[in-house]
Amino acid sequence: MEEFNIKTPNLVEGISDLKRQEILDYFNRTFELDTKLYETLQVEDAFYMRADPLRHPLIFYYGHTSCFFVNKLVLAGLLPSHINPEFESMFAIGVDEMSWDDLNEKNYNWPSVDEVRFYRKTVQKTVAQLIKDLPLQLPINWENPFWPIIMGIEHQNIHIETSSVLIRQLPVDKLQNGIFNEVYKEDNEIPTNELLPIKGGEISLGKSHQHYLYGWDLEYGNHKETIEDFKVAKYLVSNAEFYEFIKDNGYHTEQWWTEEGWSWKNYKQAEHPQFWVKESNSYKLRLMTQVVPMKWSFPAEINYLEAKAFCNWKSAKTSKKLRLPTEAEWYKLVNHCKIKDADQWNVAPGNINLEHYTSSCPVNKFSFGDFFDVMGNVWQWTETPITGYAGFKVHPLYDDFSTPTFDGKHNLIKGGSWISTGNEATLHARYAFRRHFYQHAGFRYVESEQEPEIRVDSYVTDEEVAISCEQNYGANYLGIEKLPLQLNEILKKHIANPSTKNLLDLNCNTGRLAFEAAQNFKQVTAIDASARFIQPAIELQKNGLLRYVVKDEGDLQVFKDVLLNNLRLEKPINPVLFMQDDAMKLKERYKDFDAIVAFNLLEELQNPQLLLNEIHKRIRKDGIFILGSSYQWNKAITPKENWLGGFKKDGEPVKSIETIQHILSSQFTLVEKPFDLKYLTRKSSRDFDVIISEVSIWKKK
Amino acid sequence: MEEFNIKTPNLVEGISDLKRQEILDYFNRTFELDTKLYETLQVEDAFYMRADPLRHPLIFYYGHTSCFFVNKLVLAGLLPSHINPEFESMFAIGVDEMSWDDLNEKNYNWPSVDEVRFYRKTVQKTVAQLIKDLPLQLPINWENPFWPIIMGIEHQNIHIETSSVLIRQLPVDKLQNGIFNEVYKEDNEIPTNELLPIKGGEISLGKSHQHYLYGWDLEYGNHKETIEDFKVAKYLVSNAEFYEFIKDNGYHTEQWWTEEGWSWKNYKQAEHPQFWVKESNSYKLRLMTQVVPMKWSFPAEINYLEAKAFCNWKSAKTSKKLRLPTEAEWYKLVNHCKIKDADQWNVAPGNINLEHYTSSCPVNKFSFGDFFDVMGNVWQWTETPITGYAGFKVHPLYDDFSTPTFDGKHNLIKGGSWISTGNEATLHARYAFRRHFYQHAGFRYVESEQEPEIRVDSYVTDEEVAISCEQNYGANYLGIEKLPLQLNEILKKHIANPSTKNLLDLNCNTGRLAFEAAQNFKQVTAIDASARFIQPAIELQKNGLLRYVVKDEGDLQVFKDVLLNNLRLEKPINPVLFMQDDAMKLKERYKDFDAIVAFNLLEELQNPQLLLNEIHKRIRKDGIFILGSSYQWNKAITPKENWLGGFKKDGEPVKSIETIQHILSSQFTLVEKPFDLKYLTRKSSRDFDVIISEVSIWKKK
Repeated sequence: MEEFNIKTPNLVEGISDLKRQEILDYFNRTFELDTKLYETLQVEDAFYMRADPLRHPLIFYYGHTSCFFVNKLVLAGLLPSHINPEFESMFAIGVDEMSWDDLNEKNYNWPSVDEVRFYRKTVQKTVAQLIKDLPLQLPINWENPFWPIIMGIEHQNIHIETSSVLIRQLPVDKLQNGIFNEVYKEDNEIPTNELLPIKGGEISLGKSHQHYLYGWDLEYGNHKETIEDFKVAKYLVSNAEFYEFIKDNGYHTEQWWTEEGWSWKNYKQAEHPQFWVKESNSYKLRLMTQVVPMKWSFPAEINYLEAKAFCNWKSAKTSKKLRLPTEAEWYKLVNHCKIKDADQWNVAPGNINLEHYTSSCPVNKFSFGDFFDVMGNVWQWTETPITGYAGFKVHPLYDDFSTPTFDGKHNLIKGGSWISTGNEATLHARYAFRRHFYQHAGFRYVESEQEPEIRVDSYVTDEEVAISCEQNYGANYLGIEKLPLQLNEILKKHIANPSTKNLLDLNCNTGRLAFEAAQNFKQVTAIDASARFIQPAIELQKNGLLRYVVKDEGDLQVFKDVLLNNLRLEKPINPVLFMQDDAMKLKERYKDFDAIVAFNLLEELQNPQLLLNEIHKRIRKDGIFILGSSYQWNKAITPKENWLGGFKKDGEPVKSIETIQHILSSQFTLVEKPFDLKYLTRKSSRDFDVIISEVSIWKKK
Repeated sequence: MEEFNIKTPNLVEGISDLKRQEILDYFNRTFELDTKLYETLQVEDAFYMRADPLRHPLIFYYGHTSCFFVNKLVLAGLLPSHINPEFESMFAIGVDEMSWDDLNEKNYNWPSVDEVRFYRKTVQKTVAQLIKDLPLQLPINWENPFWPIIMGIEHQNIHIETSSVLIRQLPVDKLQNGIFNEVYKEDNEIPTNELLPIKGGEISLGKSHQHYLYGWDLEYGNHKETIEDFKVAKYLVSNAEFYEFIKDNGYHTEQWWTEEGWSWKNYKQAEHPQFWVKESNSYKLRLMTQVVPMKWSFPAEINYLEAKAFCNWKSAKTSKKLRLPTEAEWYKLVNHCKIKDADQWNVAPGNINLEHYTSSCPVNKFSFGDFFDVMGNVWQWTETPITGYAGFKVHPLYDDFSTPTFDGKHNLIKGGSWISTGNEATLHARYAFRRHFYQHAGFRYVESEQEPEIRVDSYVTDEEVAISCEQNYGANYLGIEKLPLQLNEILKKHIANPSTKNLLDLNCNTGRLAFEAAQNFKQVTAIDASARFIQPAIELQKNGLLRYVVKDEGDLQVFKDVLLNNLRLEKPINPVLFMQDDAMKLKERYKDFDAIVAFNLLEELQNPQLLLNEIHKRIRKDGIFILGSSYQWNKAITPKENWLGGFKKDGEPVKSIETIQHILSSQFTLVEKPFDLKYLTRKSSRDFDVIISEVSIWKKK
């Protein structure tokens, strides 16, 4: 299928006019392939059948890829207006599982295939014309107007594959092969799988924004991982190998399954892989458009849950620690095999990009050195839930491509399948599906003593915590410096020789002050009463990465990524000791500090007087106590009888600072006149809270 | 009682050293008089008896006046610390009706009279020493450190009088005359009262902050009133004249009483004035320390409710419109009689300042020209509920002296009584009590066709409305100009020749923009959906005065007074037409405007699209529509399906401005690129909300 050899273009090198032509070709070839795919639907009513009861019928996908071009190009300001607003609404939403709740077929009155075909042609012409007319300057990076065009093409490539999976679920009598007639017909002798060693070591994942191939947002960034030596299965697990599991009653033995897996198995009443067709006592194999005799040498196509159950069963049988590879282990395998990226292939080294077959093929057909099918044939499930690498940013034109899947419930698949084209066929491709989901996906197992580290790195969406994250790590607004940086300046001013001193931050929130202070102090202990607030600080210290979501206009959101590295925080003398603890019930060990900061803590306490009465016990002679509060007493937190001020006593107004001075003066000397500190809280892109806290600085007598 | 001739000193003129001595004398004489007053308590247990079941026993007041000195001087920073913190808490609160709810005798464990006497002496010495030591510079104004000292002295003068009323309610066998033995013994022939004419005209009330005599906060400011010609009773109503009412069954005839009065009468089962003592079929009269045969020529001492019932009865009997005077009418009478202020008396012109008697005296004893007892003898109830004059400010050291009584329930008494000393005996004195309350107070009636205008001018305490008042009329904070002034600049920039044009402010809030625009426009119509918000604007337009309370620290409050005059708003061409109306259901008559402003309105509407669709019908060709919003959509107000933006549609983010442009473009041309406008809301002295609204300016096609 030479005409559909769809390789994603180099966006950095080349000559503009040739590049324009290359992109136009790429666009047209992808569009044509997509068109041809739907020609496998022999009858029109196949467009309206539900291949999967929880997915739209194919007529939706037939319109969707064109509608996507229009919507993104309008959003990018490259098209002046919509082409068919009705279609561009109808075909916009409901692509995947994320929208299952919304999927109510009653709401749709699908147009005819002819209408959609005509719409597709209009869009194809419009986009082609745009590619011809739009000024082109290399490199094509995120900001380049060609980026949304490539985005539309790659989006179409994705749907070519996912629609092929849906077609595979339609009745074969509604289908024809069309151009997809190069299925692999033989069934090889079945090879015995074996585990071959791979050397461990550090590996670096993620690409830079200067990379010359198109990438989806989640491919960028940098993630380092150290892998122990491990062994990898030479072949993908074949249908034959998987059948051992079935024969051993694997689908009926709860112990092999994860809880999620067992629950899915029972719900689906699964007895074998979905594309196996059981006929009396034998199996056939469903390919995209046809059912063929079982190919025992083809890779078993299963979901993650089945693959995991197989590994558990096989571990027990072999007394080995078998599991799926992590994403990093898969890249170790790729590096081991010295695989080149798609743009450098003459011919695809595996069954990928439609360059060889229009189906999967035996697991011992394509070798990459010692291993087979490292890329291509079918996708390979991994143990790794998808998340952005450190430095992840969403692309503004498609801010929900990845982020909804950063939930720990979507596992990465790697390597591509026979129908993976464009970006899907590149080494950096990162796609993920829910663990129960079916794609043209199988698996290979690894043997390793190393427990895969499962990082979820989901976005902090707890509004209060996210607001604190932005206050600690976000931008400055209205010309007001971030609160923790202001506090750090106070520390610098009042505490000499910090490198010999211990600091206690009694209300560290999401931790910025502690990180900053750790640059200078011998040791920083940072306490917060709430796990919700301290968790992001701990994650940031551990992973160097913090993610949160803040409010834009209305319900729109802005995704924020913070890298500890980017904050210019060098490796501190000692890492911050973050602790969740109640400042009202401080443990004995919190003592002998040279400096204590308690900012906006008093108003969070049930009895602030108690803290002020006791704080001198925690601090050394001549130690500095920095106290700040906005005195926003809230009866629900601090009963009025415990307020420090802000009320009338004996008819006269009592200011909180007076009570503070009264209590602290017995053990401390006031270093300078209390002063106001102004800081800001961002509530949304149009709403900010400016607070004025009063700061007093005390020296222990 | 020459030694207690207590005249409040001139605080502006004089020589410092002499002034210091004058103040010291004034302090000591007042203190001594207060001490002597309590010597009328013959036995110690009289200190602990409840003269009034809803008031503290006299032991409280015995301590209170000294405690007040200490508390205010500590607050002012003139005393370094409290003298007896326990006393200064115990004797601080519970002076008057405002605190009746708190008055639970169980909470008090009163000290002995000796202890309090000792405390008083200590305080007297301390304050005397302070008067001797404190640097003194004339004039003594609000900011002068001597002000709180004078405040304490005047406070003591007040309590000399109010305690004398409480003593008058104790059993006479517990009392002795002490120095208060100069009671008026005779009973004059009873004069026939008559009504004498007074010329009406404009009168100006209130004194300036440069005035040379001490004043309580509510004496300052300026209030103008125009009074019709009226007639005033020559004498206060005597016991004899009042007895006619009683004999005519006045206490049992509901029609003479106000609803409040009848309710009080029934509750108290009142049959005659409180200090009349009924013995079989005759009456005696209770004076401060003794009961004497009824003095029919003495003024009837009653509360406002009884005085009002008498006037109603007498009006019916005489077919005249009789009522109590207003405060302004009382001053007309004072002016008519050319009465000099206390500091200019050689001898008091009436029975006041203890210069003549230690009791009231016949109503025909002291003449002021044609009239008797214009000042002195007993206080005179008026029709006027107390309120601050325009320009009223609270003194920071005593912010609740007046404001709790600005509730429409406290009526002014004027003229002073035989025991009114210091500030009480000055012409500007303004004291008020609840209408059912007893003091040494009587009344005179006036005849007038004019309905007294009852201004309450209570403080806006509704938090949201008060915040809007501050946003419209308050200070600038954080260097951000007030929102309505920013909007007025936009009007000036975009609307030429406003003096020929009509403006509609569709969301006028508390009205500042409308007042500002009325300076330039031919006519301004200002609409708000909420009566709560528009009411202060209407009051401000009507009375030139607006009062509201904003939050300081905790529950502390700041009282704010706004004078239309002080905003440099000249008399506009036409006054603003303020209307409460729903922008969603605008009446037909709102049309043909040359300019319409709708700021922060969209987010308050159930269906903002509807307003945008219809607004062109209200505006002339080439008219300007100024739209601003922060797009803070709230599902509780605007259902999400009606939001203009801030959501994803067909997977793509929709910004509100896009929808606005889409809707308005059919009838309007966008004048310039939409821009951001930053403004501020003060929530408390330490908490501000900064909002960024987007403004777009449209010209009607």
